[in-house]
Order: sequence, then structure tokens, then C-alpha cells
Amino acid sequence: MNHKRAILLLSCPDNKGLVARISNFISEGGGNIISLNEHVDTLEKTFFFRVVWDMEKFKISEKELENEFRPLAEELDATWQIHFTGQKLRIAVFVSRYDHCLQELLWRQRLDDYPAEIPLIISNHPDARSMAEYHRIPFYVFPIDPENKAAQEEKEIRLLRENNIDTIVLARYMQVLSSTFIDNYPGRIINIHHSFLPAFMGGNPYKQAYERGVKIIGATSHYVTEDLDEGPIIEQDIVRISHRDTTEDLIRKGRDLERIVLARAVYFHAQHRILLNGRKTIVFD
Amino acid sequence: MNHKRAILLLSCPDNKGLVARISNFISEGGGNIISLNEHVDTLEKTFFFRVVWDMEKFKISEKELENEFRPLAEELDATWQIHFTGQKLRIAVFVSRYDHCLQELLWRQRLDDYPAEIPLIISNHPDARSMAEYHRIPFYVFPIDPENKAAQEEKEIRLLRENNIDTIVLARYMQVLSSTFIDNYPGRIINIHHSFLPAFMGGNPYKQAYERGVKIIGATSHYVTEDLDEGPIIEQDIVRISHRDTTEDLIRKGRDLERIVLARAVYFHAQHRILLNGRKTIVFD
Amino acid sequence: MNHKRAILLLSCPDNKGLVARISNFISEGGGNIISLNEHVDTLEKTFFFRVVWDMEKFKISEKELENEFRPLAEELDATWQIHFTGQKLRIAVFVSRYDHCLQELLWRQRLDDYPAEIPLIISNHPDARSMAEYHRIPFYVFPIDPENKAAQEEKEIRLLRENNIDTIVLARYMQVLSSTFIDNYPGRIINIHHSFLPAFMGGNPYKQAYERGVKIIGATSHYVTEDLDEGPIIEQDIVRISHRDTTEDLIRKGRDLERIVLARAVYFHAQHRILLNGRKTIVFD
Amino acid sequence: MNHKRAILLLSCPDNKGLVARISNFISEGGGNIISLNEHVDTLEKTFFFRVVWDMEKFKISEKELENEFRPLAEELDATWQIHFTGQKLRIAVFVSRYDHCLQELLWRQRLDDYPAEIPLIISNHPDARSMAEYHRIPFYVFPIDPENKAAQEEKEIRLLRENNIDTIVLARYMQVLSSTFIDNYPGRIINIHHSFLPAFMGGNPYKQAYERGVKIIGATSHYVTEDLDEGPIIEQDIVRISHRDTTEDLIRKGRDLERIVLARAVYFHAQHRILLNGRKTIVFD
Repeated sequence: MNHKRAILLLSCPDNKGLVARISNFISEGGGNIISLNEHVDTLEKTFFFRVVWDMEKFKISEKELENEFRPLAEELDATWQIHFTGQKLRIAVFVSRYDHCLQELLWRQRLDDYPAEIPLIISNHPDARSMAEYHRIPFYVFPIDPENKAAQEEKEIRLLRENNIDTIVLARYMQVLSSTFIDNYPGRIINIHHSFLPAFMGGNPYKQAYERGVKIIGATSHYVTEDLDEGPIIEQDIVRISHRDTTEDLIRKGRDLERIVLARAVYFHAQHRILLNGRKTIVFD
Repeated sequence: MNHKRAILLLSCPDNKGLVARISNFISEGGGNIISLNEHVDTLEKTFFFRVVWDMEKFKISEKELENEFRPLAEELDATWQIHFTGQKLRIAVFVSRYDHCLQELLWRQRLDDYPAEIPLIISNHPDARSMAEYHRIPFYVFPIDPENKAAQEEKEIRLLRENNIDTIVLARYMQVLSSTFIDNYPGRIINIHHSFLPAFMGGNPYKQAYERGVKIIGATSHYVTEDLDEGPIIEQDIVRISHRDTTEDLIRKGRDLERIVLARAVYFHAQHRILLNGRKTIVFD
Repeated sequence: MNHKRAILLLSCPDNKGLVARISNFISEGGGNIISLNEHVDTLEKTFFFRVVWDMEKFKISEKELENEFRPLAEELDATWQIHFTGQKLRIAVFVSRYDHCLQELLWRQRLDDYPAEIPLIISNHPDARSMAEYHRIPFYVFPIDPENKAAQEEKEIRLLRENNIDTIVLARYMQVLSSTFIDNYPGRIINIHHSFLPAFMGGNPYKQAYERGVKIIGATSHYVTEDLDEGPIIEQDIVRISHRDTTEDLIRKGRDLERIVLARAVYFHAQHRILLNGRKTIVFD
Repeated sequence: MNHKRAILLLSCPDNKGLVARISNFISEGGGNIISLNEHVDTLEKTFFFRVVWDMEKFKISEKELENEFRPLAEELDATWQIHFTGQKLRIAVFVSRYDHCLQELLWRQRLDDYPAEIPLIISNHPDARSMAEYHRIPFYVFPIDPENKAAQEEKEIRLLRENNIDTIVLARYMQVLSSTFIDNYPGRIINIHHSFLPAFMGGNPYKQAYERGVKIIGATSHYVTEDLDEGPIIEQDIVRISHRDTTEDLIRKGRDLERIVLARAVYFHAQHRILLNGRKTIVFD
């Protein structure tokens, strides 16, 4: 009933006949398209595409698919990736002291909410260890200070590689990653910022929001780039507040937002529904 | 810069190669696809499709397009329609005493918010005449009572035909249309109901909502079918209320919802973004 | 810094001077009002009131307060209750197989999100036992069938009494409680229904919503009365859906709503912010 | 049935017995409290209060009320104002070329949505004249350039004074008012900014939002102070967008937000529901 499916994510310069050529490739192989999304950025003249098809009676095997598709992709001058359903995305979660986002991700993994698994958790504090243990997930502590940062990050990267980690989720991880680290996982580090970006960048956004007297607070999940809080936004949501809310109330209300917004971003990412368009995202939801 | 574009809306039994075949048709004619949406109802095994392409260098003329596409459509056993940008949808607005929805539609027409024009307004009351006159739109009054209803509706239909009306929008029109009337405009009569359907069907939904003590009220725009308030839903939205709100407050807050929800439904309809799927809609927004 | 506070919840026939008389009672005792909310139902001519004051320098002791206030309350013909901060509400959670709402409540208890504790969990299935054990909360299984229902409920009530349970939260508990049971906890049983009531009452609301083709789904938390899904609504919220969402997607999206809506209702209840007004609630948020 | 009511807005240093003293003042005069709101800023130790009572059998006349209340107010070291229902707030609307906010305000005035009247409209362009004329409201054009600005503002202020204007609403008025002008109407100039402040301050917020790739856009209504876009926020709201939306779509969607958010702010202001707390507002909604 749920056969294996292929997911193609592709972007290339816009041109005539792109949909026809790619869908012919699938059709000629005997594939049945399950879902298809297309977007053209008319200013940048770029074409974005996601298509999912049934592999059951498809003539090209999973193994050969990339090779078979490559000639067409090169002709289109495309950036592309192919995934298959059934492959779980391997996610490492980084956490510090606040564990509500970590808990949310663990809970959704248990419910099979999205095709991802969490083979390990990394923290700069020991606080979340018991939660990790309850879920039987290896938990590594790398305390960070200005002196040891480069060395610790190196160890972290080695550990991530050994575990074939694909994507890193910063679940309220309070350390800034170095450019070197980030360069190892371009477009594959997801952060949650507890404000409606670009409002209240930097530290203590709830305090900033309280002092500015806004009537709505938000949370933003984005890919991490070298510019802190400036990476491509994946998902945002908001909640209404009032003069009755103290900074503590904002923290409490914001916690629910952070959890949901981060979980949605991970959901889209794990289902390969996101394409990068410069500093923006295309999310085929 | 803004060349004429063709819009194809199509649904048919799901099958392999549908996207390829239709996009080949466009590609072979030299058309550049601007936007494409696809949906498969896997339970009903039905394929829904909307595609927009540039007519500028397209080899088939606007006039011949339907004839050229028909053979493929018949092969696919499809229900389909083709529209062209630049053609304004001709809408007749029906109104009674509350004129906020009418005003919203007139205001948006003036702003060119959607490709539609309002060549005439029909009412069972004279109240909205001055608003119609300010906008220089012919205004017709057809008072309705149980005795004259059939005869009045006949006159209305004649008037609508003479004016080549495509779509009817019931902007808080307080009369129930007969099945005969509705049969003349299948899938082309849009209503706004001032509740979050299916909650509070029938009369006085704000009073019903007040008495039930709900914490949120809504508005629903839907296509009209013979079953009152049961037609396919196009758009809904809500607003939060509290114990402080009286029935009058609900009416006031709901007014803003009704306007926006109806206007969005008309926007989707006028842009040919809606396909019917039984008693449900596919809205490619 | 955080002294003990008194919370008075009161409703009575509306009359002149009510605020003055009650605030004089507090003021004369030397109490400083921290927060005050008032509502008049002008149709029912009923006055609703919540006031919180600092007990630190208040001349009347916690113990004597009810006795000292009673004469005034009787004069006003009032229904009233007095609570003190620091007293944790004792909640029994009833659960069946879906444990996301239970998990949410346990998580919030751990974070001290609201002044409540969960001394026991009751279920008609053993499924949630390991979650209860992880949180070190006694877990009781009472399987229910038509024959044993009355006897099992009796046992449950005995257990609740032995544990001084104040409030029962039905966290997706799939059994209907008998009137006898409900009469034991009037206005103190909170349920979560997975639809935007009064739409989609009864079973399988997500399936109903899918089939009706609504564009928004909701969740509703309400007090339980003898009429199933008809009790006073405490809190509701919604999430937008589209034709792309299957029934499974509605269940997944709805889960997040249910958790948040139930948790908010429990928050208001545990903080003594809710007054009943017939089949409606006054929530002083 | 709808007798005249008094509305007292007051703020003062927090202290014991404040509610009792003020409600005694009303109670001793024989006034029946219709609605009462209270807020304490515990950080600033400031008390905020709004109370509405029936003047029907109140012993102090409308004329004498301020004098009678003054001694108590002075004792409390309070900032305060008293209004009466039935007095319409006199609002001057300033507009430039975009007239959707102006239209919304005129429409709501016609519906008696709030107790305000618009005796005159001022613009730096002639564009909105016909709309003003249709509503029979005097329309004044004051073209502004760097040289004539001071002189033109002087003339505007004279005109506003002659017309006993209480409040100025900037309905997408594209000129920056001078400090001199603003000082004449402290806390009585309401602006609408077409972003979710503090995000995207300054010019072209929709273009900024498009380029940043946010998933939600907003609008903010605030009191005008010397710091552009930094005044106390009255109301905000948002709408979800996606990668499919062009800058033009943001403008179109944002228009609906701007209208609604500004109208809500004017509603709260005209009903005397707003108190200033430094650079923040208390809105008793």
C-alpha cells in the first residue's frame, strides 16, 4: 500500500519545457506522480521543483536513479537531490538548559510524526541527560569556553561524522557555532529563535519584547548561516499578548510557540519540502 | 511584460503520465509554464490540475486552443475549462440590507484587486441604491414574497443572461434561492455565511454563538447548492471573542470577518483557482 | 517577595456598590489588591468578580477568612469560593490510549507552569503505564465494559476521595462518564474535544471535518455535564488546513491543538480564573 | 435604557485601598458600576484604572463631576480624565495617496462602530477629495515641501483648533510630523505602520519583508512620538504569507491588515480604553 517513493528536489534557471522534460523522465520510466510542486521566482528567473513518484513499477532502480537522472540535470544546469521514503533523516539535536524543544522533538519521533531519527544529543551542559536516557539516546556533553571552543567543535564534528548525521537541530542551544562548523553543514543546521525575526535579534528577545510593549510575540525557525539570526527563515508563528503579561508570561507563552514552530520546520526539512532561494526558503507545504 | 496567459483547470481519473502529457502539450506549442498546481485525491483516485502558461510565443491561438486541447481532454476523460488573463469575470452581486460585503467587493474592484467586474447589483430592498449609484453600477430591486418568488427569479435570470453574468455573489442576500435558480449557475454562486460552518447553520448564527458561549466565531464562504449552508466550502476564518462580547459585539467583529472571507473567496474564484471535488473544494492558493 | 495571596471568586445578583463593599472588606483588613476583574451579564443581571490580594499584612488569618467574609457574601446572595496561592490543585488525569494530552500535562507540571499537581492517573487501558512510571505517578487501570461500568466508577470515586482529588481532567479519555459520576464533581471535570464545538460533536470529528471539507479545524476544552459535548466551553483554538491534508494530517495537526487548548484550560482552572454563568464560562485571563 | 455613563481613566502610584476609595466615591454618589478594569505594573509600582458607571441616578452632575473628583485624585497623585458617553470624539484624518485606511474609517463612522466623528480630512495631495466629498466631509490640501513645512503645519494646527479636533489619525499619511506639531497632541496622534514593529521600521516595509523572506507580515498601530515608529503600540495583527507571494501580494494582503488594525486602535481610543505606561500602552479591551 505504501510503496517506496522517490522525491526529487531541484532548482535551475527558468526555461521553457522544464516540467515536461522532468515529468517525461518519470513517465517514460513508468512512474506515477504522487505529488508535484513548482515555483518560479520571476525576478531571479529561477525554477524550483519538487516531485514525488511511486517507485513500485518504476523501471530505474533506486541505486541507478541518480546516474540516470544526471544527464538531464546537467543539461538544465540544476542543483538537485533525490531521496527515498523509508530513509530516515539522521538528526543530531544540540541543547543547553531549556529542554522543552528537545522534549518536543523526542515526543514527535516517538509518534513517528516525521521520517527522522535522533541517534545522538549533544549539549554544553549535563542537564538534559536524564531525558536522553529515558529515551535511550546517547548523550554527549561538550562544555564550551572561549579557549576550548575550536577543539570541542572539532570533536563534535568527528562524532557527527561517525554517526552519519545529516542534519543538526539547535533546540535552544545557547552557543554560537563557528563559521568553520557551519561550513560543514550548509543548509543543514536548523535553529529556533524565540522572537518574530527580524524583530528582537540577539539575546533576551522576550525581555526586549516586554520593554517595547508589543501586542504579539513570535518564534522563528531558520537555517543557520554565519550571520546570527539572519539565515533563511523556514517557519514562524505568533501568539497574542497584553499588558497583563510579565516577562515570565512571555517566556511561558513563547515556549509553546518555540516547540511548535521548530517541530514544523523539522517536519518540512525531514520530508524534503524545502529549497533554498538565496537567503529565502521555498517551503512546499 | 504582462503578456496574455492561458489558465487550464482540469480534473480527471488519476493515471500515470498525466502531468507529462499535459505539459508536453504546452511545451510542444512553445508555451512557458508560469505556474502549476496538482493534487491527487488518493481515496477517490482523482487528479486535479491547474496550469498557467504564457501565450506570447504559443503557436496555438486563443481562439483555437479549446479545439486543439479537446482530443487530449477526451482521452483523459477530463472535466476542464480554459480561461485567459485579461478576461474579466462578470459578477452580479445580490444584496439585502447589510451592505458591508457589497461595499468591500466594490472597493476591491476599484483597486483592481482581482480580475472581475460588477456590471449590476440586484437586491430585494432599495437600501443599497445610493452606494450602487456612487459606483455607477445599475441597481435592480426585485422584492420577493412567497407568491411572486418564481416569477421574480425568472426575471432575474433573464437580466443576468442579458448581461452575460458568469458568477453570482450573495453578499448577505437574505433570500433563499430556488433549486431552479441554482441549477442555472452550478458552482457559480458564492455565498457568505456568518458562522464557522458547520457550526451554527441557519438563522441568527451570532445569537446562537452568544448563547452557546463559544470563544471563537467564524465566517464561511461557500458555493451554493440546494442544501442550505451545505455547499462546498471555499474559505473560512475566525476571530477570538470573550465573555465581554455581547451579541452586538459579535455582529460588529463578525462583519470584518465576513468581508474579508467573502473577498478572498471571490479572489480565488475570479482567478480560476478553485476546482470542485464532490462537496469539497480544491483551492490552489 | 511572593507572599501568600488570597483569591476570591464570586458571583451574585447585580447591584449598586458591590465593588465598593468587597474592596472595602479587603481594604479595611489592610489587604493590597494585586489584581481585580469584574464582569456584569446585563441580560441576566448577574455580577461576576475575581480579586486577588496580598495576605502579608492582612489582619484576618487564612483560617478565619471564610468565616469573616460569609456575612457579606450572604447579604449579597453570592456564590463564592476563596483560595490561597501556594495551595496546589490536586488533579486526577483520566486517559485511554492517546497519551499526547497526558504528556503535555505532565510536562507542564514539571515546569511548574500552573499551581497543580497530579497525584494519580486513571486509565481504562494499561498503555500509558510506562509514562506514568517515568514521572513516578501512581497509575490505576479500570477496564470498563457495559456490565462493570457502575461498579468501576464507584471504585474510581472512592480512590479519588482517598486522594483528596479536586479536579478531574479527561485527557482524551474515551469513556463516557455516568451522570452519577459527574454529579460528584460539578464544574470540576475538564474535557478536551477534538473539534471546534459545536461543529462535529460526537465520534470521529477529524473524519467528519475531512468529509465536510472545512478549511480550518479546532479543538475545544469544556466542563463536562450530562449532555455530551454540550458543557460550558473554557477555551478553543484552531489551525488552518487545506485540500492537501488527509484525515491522518488532521489528526497530526489536531494533536498539537488539543494539547495546547487543554493545557490552557487547566491553567485557567488551576489559577481559579473561571466562573460559571449557566452553560457559559467567564474566563478572567 | 442607554443612560449617559461616566468613564474615568486614571493612573497613579500603587497603594493600598485605591479600588475601595474610588469605588466608594462612585457608590456614595449612587452610581452603578457598569464595567471596571484594573492593572498594576508591579515593576513600576503604578496603578492603572478604568471604570464606567451609570449617571442616571448619580447625585453629582456631569458638570460638577471633575471638581468633585479632583480632591481624591490629588490625594492619590493621579493622572486622570473623565469622559461621558454620548460625547463623540472629534477626529481629523490625515491621508496621502493610499485611501484604503481613510475609507475604512469613514465606513465605520457611517455604521456608528465607535463614538467618533470626522469633521475634516487633511491631505498633502488632492487624490482623496472625491471620497471626502461623497461623505460630505470638508477636505483640505496642504502640500508639503522642506521649505514650507513649518508654515503649513502651523496652518494645519490652526485649522484643527478651530474645529475642536481632539485626536489625529494618520491613515497612511506619508509625511513626518515635526516635534512641534506632535507636542500639540501628546498621546493623541494615532499612526498605522505597515509592518510588525519593531521589524521593518522606516520606508518600504513590504519590500523589506519580501527580501528578508519572512513567513508572516504584520501591521502596527501606535501613538506618534518624536521617534519615528517608536511610539507606544496600541494594536498589531498579522497574516501568513509564502514564497508564492510577490511584493505586490504583500501590499494587497497587508492592506486588509492595515485597515483592520488601525480601525481597532481608533475603536479603543475613542472608547477611552487606553492608558499610557511610559512607551507602552494598557488597552482595556
